[in-house]
Amino acid sequence: MEQKRILLTITYDGTDYVGWQYQDNGPSIQGEVEKALEKALGAFIRVTGASRTDAGVHALGQRAHFDVCSSIPPEKYPFVLNRYLPEDIRVTAARQVPDDFHARFQARGKLYTYRMHNAPHASAILRRCTAHVPVPLQVERMEKCAAPLLGTHDFSAFAAAGGQAKTTVRTIDFFDIRQENQEITLRVHGNGFLYNMVRIIAGTLIDVGHGKLDERCMARALESKNRLDLGVTAPACGLELTRVEYDLEGEEPCWKIC
Amino acid sequence: MEQKRILLTITYDGTDYVGWQYQDNGPSIQGEVEKALEKALGAFIRVTGASRTDAGVHALGQRAHFDVCSSIPPEKYPFVLNRYLPEDIRVTAARQVPDDFHARFQARGKLYTYRMHNAPHASAILRRCTAHVPVPLQVERMEKCAAPLLGTHDFSAFAAAGGQAKTTVRTIDFFDIRQENQEITLRVHGNGFLYNMVRIIAGTLIDVGHGKLDERCMARALESKNRLDLGVTAPACGLELTRVEYDLEGEEPCWKIC
Repeated sequence: MEQKRILLTITYDGTDYVGWQYQDNGPSIQGEVEKALEKALGAFIRVTGASRTDAGVHALGQRAHFDVCSSIPPEKYPFVLNRYLPEDIRVTAARQVPDDFHARFQARGKLYTYRMHNAPHASAILRRCTAHVPVPLQVERMEKCAAPLLGTHDFSAFAAAGGQAKTTVRTIDFFDIRQENQEITLRVHGNGFLYNMVRIIAGTLIDVGHGKLDERCMARALESKNRLDLGVTAPACGLELTRVEYDLEGEEPCWKIC
Repeated sequence: MEQKRILLTITYDGTDYVGWQYQDNGPSIQGEVEKALEKALGAFIRVTGASRTDAGVHALGQRAHFDVCSSIPPEKYPFVLNRYLPEDIRVTAARQVPDDFHARFQARGKLYTYRMHNAPHASAILRRCTAHVPVPLQVERMEKCAAPLLGTHDFSAFAAAGGQAKTTVRTIDFFDIRQENQEITLRVHGNGFLYNMVRIIAGTLIDVGHGKLDERCMARALESKNRLDLGVTAPACGLELTRVEYDLEGEEPCWKIC
C-alpha cells in the first residue's frame, strides 16, 4: 500500500490542555490526536501542526499533517478519529496532500480571533473561550490604535521571548473589531504571527480601550521596536486560531471576511 | 434592620447541574445560590426562581428573589455572591423590589434562545451550549413552519407531561431564526411557556429542517392539540433562558429585539 500524506482540520477547546505540542506536564492536543490515530490504526504516527498554540488557546481551524499507509479514504478520518478523541477536540475535515506538503512551513495566511467579555462579571456560559475584561472599553479608541498595524512592518516590539522566527517582518492585511452586547471580538489576518503577537495586540488594545495607554502606542511601537511601548499580554483563554490557509487546489482561494 | 426583598439576575452554564431547582441527585443552581448566600450572610435563605430550568439548560438572565435583613446595599450582591459561587454561575445584577413581588408569578414575558451546531461533527468549543445536529437543515423550511406560532393559541400539543400550568393558552409575539456559518439560532419571546415547549418547538423545527416532517405540522398541531403531530424534544444543552421581564420601574419597559 502506498504512503499518503493527510492534512487534517482540527477544532479544540484548549482550556484543559498544555497547548498543541506534546509536553511532559499534561495532556496536549497533538498527543490526543496521536493517541486517537494509534487507537484507530494500531501504530504510532507523528502529527505535525501548522501552529503550536499555547496552553489554553483554542482553535476552530488548526491544520496538521501525517503520513500513513492505510486503505482508509482520506475524507473518512474525521469519523475515524472523532470516535477516539475527547469531546473538546474534533477533527472536522481531512484530505490528501502532496508528499512534500508541510502544514507549518507552507501556511501562507492565518486568521486569529480574540474574544473578550466586557462586563463587571465574567461570562458563566462563555467563560472558557472569552477573556474577562471588567473595565469598560471604548471600541473607537481601540480601532484608532490598531489602524497602523495594517501593512508590512517589522513587528519585533510585538514578540515575546521564546519565539524561533528568523525575521520579525510580517504583513497584516485585515483587522476588525466587533461589539455585540457585552462581547468584543478582534479578528486579525496576516501571513504569519510572532510568538504571542496576537495576545500582545489584544492586551495593548484592552489597555488603550480603558484609557491606560494612549491611542498612538501601536504606531510608536512599530517605530521604536520596543516591547515596553505596548501593554500586557492578554490571557490565552480569549484566543482562537480560526483558520490556516494554503496554496492547495480545492482550498478556498482567498479568505473571505464576513 | 428592615427586611428587604432582593431580585437577582443570574447567568449559568447548566451542563453540570440537575437544573434550577433543588434535587437529591446532584447540585442545582438554586442550591448553589443558597449556599453562596449562606456563606456570605451566615444564615440559610430560600431563593425563588422565575423559571425552573431543566437539567443541562443554561440561562443568560434567570431571575430569582429572596428576603434578607442585611445592611449590604442591594447592588453589591453580585460581588458578594460571585465570591462564593462556582465559575459556571454568575450573579450579574441585583435590585430591591416591593415586598409583594414574586419572581415567578409576576414574570410577564420570557425570551428563550435555542442554539444548534449544524455540521457533520459536533462543536469542540461550543459543545456545552449547542445541540449538535449532523443532518443538513434548511432554514427556509423551518421559518415557514414556525410562522403560525405567532399570536395567541392553545399550545397544549406543545407541552410535555409534568407541567403545572392551569391554562395552555399562551402568546408568542416574536420568533426568529438566524444562521451564521454552522450555527443556527432560534429565539422565541412570549408571555409564558409550557413545560418543554421551547425544546418541542426546536425539535420539531429540526425534523422539518431536514425533511422528516412537513412544513405544515406546527399549524396542524395547533388545530389538533396532538403532541404526536410534532417532532422530538430537542436536547437540553441547546436551550438558554435569555431574559425574564417584569413590570418594575427601572427595568427596560419592553424588550428590544436586536
